[in-house]
Amino acid sequence: MDLKEKIKQKKVVAGVVGMGYVGLPLMVEIAKNGIKVLGFNRGQEKVDKVNAGTNYIQDVADEELAELVRKGLVSATCDFSRIPEVDVICIAVPTPINNQKEPELDLVIDATKKIAKNLQKGQLVILKSTTYPGTTEEVVLPILEKESGLKVGKDFYLAFAPERIDPGNEKYGTGNTPKVVGGVDSKSTKLAADFFRLFITEVFEVSSPAAAEMTKILENTFRLINISFINEMALLADKMNIDIWEVIEAAKTKPFGFMPFYPGPGLGGHCIPVDPYYLAYKAKKMGLKTSFIDTASDIDDFMHQYVVEIAEKALGKKLLTEAKILILGVAYKKDINDLRESPALKVIELLSKKGANYDYYDPHVPNFNDNGVKKTSLEKIDSDIIRNYDLIIILTDHSSVDYEMVLKAANKVVDTRNAIKERAEKVLKI
Amino acid sequence: MDLKEKIKQKKVVAGVVGMGYVGLPLMVEIAKNGIKVLGFNRGQEKVDKVNAGTNYIQDVADEELAELVRKGLVSATCDFSRIPEVDVICIAVPTPINNQKEPELDLVIDATKKIAKNLQKGQLVILKSTTYPGTTEEVVLPILEKESGLKVGKDFYLAFAPERIDPGNEKYGTGNTPKVVGGVDSKSTKLAADFFRLFITEVFEVSSPAAAEMTKILENTFRLINISFINEMALLADKMNIDIWEVIEAAKTKPFGFMPFYPGPGLGGHCIPVDPYYLAYKAKKMGLKTSFIDTASDIDDFMHQYVVEIAEKALGKKLLTEAKILILGVAYKKDINDLRESPALKVIELLSKKGANYDYYDPHVPNFNDNGVKKTSLEKIDSDIIRNYDLIIILTDHSSVDYEMVLKAANKVVDTRNAIKERAEKVLKI
Repeated sequence: MDLKEKIKQKKVVAGVVGMGYVGLPLMVEIAKNGIKVLGFNRGQEKVDKVNAGTNYIQDVADEELAELVRKGLVSATCDFSRIPEVDVICIAVPTPINNQKEPELDLVIDATKKIAKNLQKGQLVILKSTTYPGTTEEVVLPILEKESGLKVGKDFYLAFAPERIDPGNEKYGTGNTPKVVGGVDSKSTKLAADFFRLFITEVFEVSSPAAAEMTKILENTFRLINISFINEMALLADKMNIDIWEVIEAAKTKPFGFMPFYPGPGLGGHCIPVDPYYLAYKAKKMGLKTSFIDTASDIDDFMHQYVVEIAEKALGKKLLTEAKILILGVAYKKDINDLRESPALKVIELLSKKGANYDYYDPHVPNFNDNGVKKTSLEKIDSDIIRNYDLIIILTDHSSVDYEMVLKAANKVVDTRNAIKERAEKVLKI
Repeated sequence: MDLKEKIKQKKVVAGVVGMGYVGLPLMVEIAKNGIKVLGFNRGQEKVDKVNAGTNYIQDVADEELAELVRKGLVSATCDFSRIPEVDVICIAVPTPINNQKEPELDLVIDATKKIAKNLQKGQLVILKSTTYPGTTEEVVLPILEKESGLKVGKDFYLAFAPERIDPGNEKYGTGNTPKVVGGVDSKSTKLAADFFRLFITEVFEVSSPAAAEMTKILENTFRLINISFINEMALLADKMNIDIWEVIEAAKTKPFGFMPFYPGPGLGGHCIPVDPYYLAYKAKKMGLKTSFIDTASDIDDFMHQYVVEIAEKALGKKLLTEAKILILGVAYKKDINDLRESPALKVIELLSKKGANYDYYDPHVPNFNDNGVKKTSLEKIDSDIIRNYDLIIILTDHSSVDYEMVLKAANKVVDTRNAIKERAEKVLKI
């Protein structure tokens, strides 16, 4: 039975390489639809957890994963020689940037090599990791063909289909978020699209992997630009004695042509502070400009410093080094436990450089590593605890915190998220 | 009866200063709700037209205006000594920028002076013209108080309430677009808000005129930034052999966090290429940066030139000076007759500088003044006419044009609006 027929009859077996924030929810979504999934991962720890039915991702339901593992629909391995057992291979490994904001494709290349060595005739490979336009055809394809001796379009198929997962989003998950797919040829596009249609409501086919790669980058660069733009507007508004949060609420009443974004202590997460630099890297290599990304980058860098400036202003005559500071929230956005690229870490780094000490409270992040020092969250906060600090800095606005209590009890507050709705002299906002 | 009571009992008489794209639709909207309106205008021509019941604005229904004039609900005058006849005075005069992209507040100042000389106790003045944060309190208020000898908050009231009119928008007009209002004191805010509630569905009160001024600028700067950003992405995509229009369609399938904007030959209209420079001017005066506006400005300036570059590329060996060129659409956006700040004019200027000659066809703009030369639109286009040109340049995508016919008949097309959906070698897109 060829792949087209296997997909049609829903007898396809799926492989997912990389079992993190993207890979594991994908495995669950596929298996929920009765399709067998084998996960591949470099590290043994996640493999053991999955095989034991133990969940480690916030957006996955513990019981759902356990049930799928019991049913034999989900299993995992470190052994890439088992690639021949699957029909479709989704690559969902991280694509970070280095300190120079340049792409780190090592994990994609490593996964591709391991797949290539075990690639079988008739298999379909789908890259899902966000990357610059051209990666699928210029980086992945040559490795697959060279190491396997097989020919794309004839022996195997290759497509790019970006992930759009939004951690913590309760309305849109893998299954009901439309999937964009672009193959290296029309057969690859069609096979990949039909595969996704088995478990995703809407699939949108584009004419090339590069168009699909660009789609994801456009989406996240749009967010980068708009968040940075509103941050710049917040800086201006502050100097003009205008409350930017009030202005955004007012602008939101426009029923067409406007979309609200909010200021904050800087960009965070695994996508927005990363993806645009993949495009910037590629553009630079081609001698082209990405002025908006550069502008956004400058403003974002400044925001961390700006939070520290407001903190110093809030403390008045008291020095940062002498102040008792409590940071509320360190996750990169509200109600999640994810610290990746969190602006809180950058603000903390700047505070530490200035000799400030701090405690923190984050109900979602019980502890984290602050440059080698393990920091542990306060177990709880209440009026007595809050009153004890000279300054409260709200960096993440988790829903479970009682901000009215914070407002009442605090001596001074720097609120970077408009968590405290009331306006008071002791609260300084971004 | 005081103003509050007059508004409550709907016995208020409204004055509107400036009877253009904003003023006339506002007059009609007010009068439709049974409130008497007196329009004030410097020029006699519009005054005579209105008093004769003759409409001159696309978004106003001819019969509606005529009916309101017959009923005595709408009338107009050049005589500002009639200001005492009205209770509320809305200022809706143009606020353009000069060649250095600096605000031209002359018309606001002139209108304010004329109002001030005739200002009565108990009157409410509402500035609606888009301007930089601070104008109402720093420019309008001092003139009103000085020339009238009256005191704001005690003798008269003052607020800012930006216009959000979107020419050609059939869903949202003056009456059903929420109105943002900020007064110089709470009584001014309340009176202005209650006045607008007589004829506008939703009114949103903010804490100051500056917040209301900033709201309008945020809305339109958001659009400036995003249109310029997508133009920069279009430039990149072109070099990467990616179809940006396809990418935008794909990105649009994301059900959260994305809003589509489209590339084009440059910004146009009376708001987007103008309003942000009011903010930039004020920021500059305060020693602050507006990096995003500056970046957008650079890209916008480049787009006109880029259209000419594509045109030269499309012509191949044929020189611009020798080519027969037809421009389709000169209005600043589709299906309207408005030429203000139209990018077509700038593209035409660059083409002319290079010695190119052109004809044009725009069903909404029968003629216009091209640097002193009156240009007249072709009366119609058909296959024979299109075939006769070496190059068709689509600058505005009016709905009434048959683009399939254009595609079939044309020798070469530069399509800056994705008006032609089909992809063909003879069509070059932005």
